[in-house]
Amino acid sequence: MKIPECDECGRPSVIHRRYEGTHLCKTHFLEDIEKKVRKHARVHGLVRHGDRILVAVSGGKDSLAQLVLLDRTRKKHGKIDLEALIIDEGIKGYREHGVEAARRACERLGVKLHVESFRDWFGATLDEMVARRRDPTVGACTFCGVFRRYIMNKKARELGMNKVAVGHNLDDEAQAILVNHIKGDLERGARLGPATPEPDNPLFVQRIKILRPIPERETALYALLCGIEPDMSECPYARESIRDRVRDFINQLEEEHPGTVFSIVRTFDRLLPILRREFLGKGRVWKCPECGEPTAVRGQPCKACQLKKLF
Amino acid sequence: MKIPECDECGRPSVIHRRYEGTHLCKTHFLEDIEKKVRKHARVHGLVRHGDRILVAVSGGKDSLAQLVLLDRTRKKHGKIDLEALIIDEGIKGYREHGVEAARRACERLGVKLHVESFRDWFGATLDEMVARRRDPTVGACTFCGVFRRYIMNKKARELGMNKVAVGHNLDDEAQAILVNHIKGDLERGARLGPATPEPDNPLFVQRIKILRPIPERETALYALLCGIEPDMSECPYARESIRDRVRDFINQLEEEHPGTVFSIVRTFDRLLPILRREFLGKGRVWKCPECGEPTAVRGQPCKACQLKKLF
Repeated sequence: MKIPECDECGRPSVIHRRYEGTHLCKTHFLEDIEKKVRKHARVHGLVRHGDRILVAVSGGKDSLAQLVLLDRTRKKHGKIDLEALIIDEGIKGYREHGVEAARRACERLGVKLHVESFRDWFGATLDEMVARRRDPTVGACTFCGVFRRYIMNKKARELGMNKVAVGHNLDDEAQAILVNHIKGDLERGARLGPATPEPDNPLFVQRIKILRPIPERETALYALLCGIEPDMSECPYARESIRDRVRDFINQLEEEHPGTVFSIVRTFDRLLPILRREFLGKGRVWKCPECGEPTAVRGQPCKACQLKKLF
Repeated sequence: MKIPECDECGRPSVIHRRYEGTHLCKTHFLEDIEKKVRKHARVHGLVRHGDRILVAVSGGKDSLAQLVLLDRTRKKHGKIDLEALIIDEGIKGYREHGVEAARRACERLGVKLHVESFRDWFGATLDEMVARRRDPTVGACTFCGVFRRYIMNKKARELGMNKVAVGHNLDDEAQAILVNHIKGDLERGARLGPATPEPDNPLFVQRIKILRPIPERETALYALLCGIEPDMSECPYARESIRDRVRDFINQLEEEHPGTVFSIVRTFDRLLPILRREFLGKGRVWKCPECGEPTAVRGQPCKACQLKKLF
């Protein structure tokens, strides 16, 4: 079978984008992704001269593609500082591979990598938290999500970084949009988008998503073509959640109606400014009385301090 | 196996509602549905003293359950006039059964039934339109939807009715909500809800959905327990559309996480007033230069007149 030709230059293509009916070769694919990401970053003010960005990495394809893209962006932009953070939750037989992949990529790009562990921060690995937890209805993903965001935010502040870059791609965003609608969480929905709302409190560090316009399949291909070796293992705590159903559903729709994932995110983007205005708590942010980090309710411990008492 | 007991009276139950963990017997189920529908109608002003309501029926379980419920409501409410309308699109081997079922139900309830056909209104049956259409990308459901709404609206006005009742249940609404989001049609999304927006033009007759809080499974059970014999055949033009995917997806989620369908609609209801404010065309409605019915764009023929030229 003949490999279809690149629409730009006629060389053999590496990808067929059904959603726009194009074929691209390696060179034009990489160029196109980088152009899209730079435009997205510019339009939404994600990356600016003088930024100090802490790149959250997991060792997987998205986070390492993100790292390469930010590295290339800074070479175009001039003064942008990058450091990377990987969080070792302590999931036996899983996270070790990710840490190794992240180390290799950071060395190659000359980006300083910080490794922080749940054990050092909270006195236990995720495996231990789950084994010892007093409330079995609190799932592994709750501990993991809350503690990871806690470390990301605090570590970024300690390092004097003004942004945290997270590797969410287009598919992740589309899934989150539907999950929040289904669960009725419009407040959480209002926090989606290319970046978390500009923090009105120095305790918060803004999170940015430079991969948001790029489909998952293409972040993976990008990482691969850049010679990155991502860790491809799956978290053992993943299981049949609403999120998984939504993922399967969107993948099937995209298969049958190419462009669906873009459409879901585009529709949401028309709603986002309204959601932020209507549903984002206008209330102030308070200091957690136990750890000094941000908390939503005055006088109450933050989510992390609440969870710390459960294991 | 023992039949679980009704939570209200201890008699054998006819339904187990997983989303609220209850069992109800026939009497308490019927009572509960009627109470919910009356409350829904009251809260949203769907049915008022003096209303003249044209009930759109298809002969299926939803539309006939709706007819029974409106009939019982008017007996509580006093002065409410009901007439029914069934539209014969001319789908061979399908619609005949629906017309028969509707006729039986209307006779039993003493409601006058109007039968209107695509052939009389537009000179061709749906089967003929599809066979003769000049543009094969215009599907049967497009002809059907546009022409049915056209007849409903005009017929209601001619009969001096101030509302058209349509049999959409909770599941229909949840599906429409997701489909509109996926397709990016926020304007159409803003027209969902318990009733179409109060018409600011006498050409439009408001459409109301009294079954909107009732899951599909329960509208079917209600019709059955009332001794209605609905037509259960499926439209031969139904096929694998985005709508079908969304239906399967929601059904699976509801199976695994009871209450999901309610949650989708509830979330949407928090958005609806905002959607109406932001996305509902504030523009005036114009008279179609060809038929005098409403049209969205000044000087342009309405959707029905456009479609009439395609077969």
